Amino acid sequence: MKRSEVVLAQKRTADILQQNSIVLTEDEIGRIEVAGFGLNELQVQGLELITYINTDRYCAKELVLFPRQTCPEHSHPPIGDDPGKTETFRCRSGRVFLYVEGEATSDIQAQVPVGSESYYTVFHQIELLPGQQYTIQPGIKHWFQSGDQGAIVSEFSSTSRDEYDIFTDPRIERMPVIQED
Amino acid sequence: MKRSEVVLAQKRTADILQQNSIVLTEDEIGRIEVAGFGLNELQVQGLELITYINTDRYCAKELVLFPRQTCPEHSHPPIGDDPGKTETFRCRSGRVFLYVEGEATSDIQAQVPVGSESYYTVFHQIELLPGQQYTIQPGIKHWFQSGDQGAIVSEFSSTSRDEYDIFTDPRIERMPVIQED
Repeated sequence: MKRSEVVLAQKRTADILQQNSIVLTEDEIGRIEVAGFGLNELQVQGLELITYINTDRYCAKELVLFPRQTCPEHSHPPIGDDPGKTETFRCRSGRVFLYVEGEATSDIQAQVPVGSESYYTVFHQIELLPGQQYTIQPGIKHWFQSGDQGAIVSEFSSTSRDEYDIFTDPRIERMPVIQED
Repeated sequence: MKRSEVVLAQKRTADILQQNSIVLTEDEIGRIEVAGFGLNELQVQGLELITYINTDRYCAKELVLFPRQTCPEHSHPPIGDDPGKTETFRCRSGRVFLYVEGEATSDIQAQVPVGSESYYTVFHQIELLPGQQYTIQPGIKHWFQSGDQGAIVSEFSSTSRDEYDIFTDPRIERMPVIQED
């Protein structure tokens, strides 16, 4: 992803948050992470996030999904003494379709990203509307997509070590290098 | 505090949150904790809060302060293997004056509750506006008050065990019985 695309997505993310009464500082806007996972289709498979705090005890982030944007399937493995990240997703605005391990839901409401079908393997659907939340236990494969209006999700969790996330799609790089324009 | 006062404060809290685009479920509205600390002056010394999640790993709450309402001075002690609660306060709306241990600020902006002056002993002021946050380490005495417009504060923390909080004011009961009308 190019620097200019990152900056544009940061601006769009800050605007979405502001429209929903979520204020970021100028410093935070510059720290918004635009995660394209090295797939070069940010609007399809991607996620925007700001980490408010991440210590050895807990973590809190705001996640923004553009309309129908998908965070690809992954899990949080144990690391040393840590059993793996436990995370609670709380929908703040919009609508989120979350998929976890378990009995597959028939007629899921998300659209699996075209060309990446083989990297989506869990289909137990949880729909989250504003005020609704769900907690994902360590090691559980999951992916999520917003509805047609996009979504804002607050994530409350144990310590975040994103660089250890295990993605089903082997093409994914969680932390690709940003190319200067 | 009487049940009717609790229900009224819950309604007011839910309205304040809704006005700031923070949605609670009906179940959550009924679970809003109205903390008067057994002092019978809720509008002066009190706090309203909803706990989204509290596990053995992390906790997240939304705190609401009515205009100039004060959460009295307290600290979070170690409990067993837990070094005590670490908490991050992030101001979402309004203005918060937070006081922690350290060099006293001259001319503090909060008004110490009349009649309770001897139970306020730390005066190092941190002012939080929307988008600003501060992390309080375990064992540190602290108290906070909102400005004239009230405030909403997101609290991200390690596990919460409110019943063990140590208040400077010996009259305080953290979990007083609610009287049925």
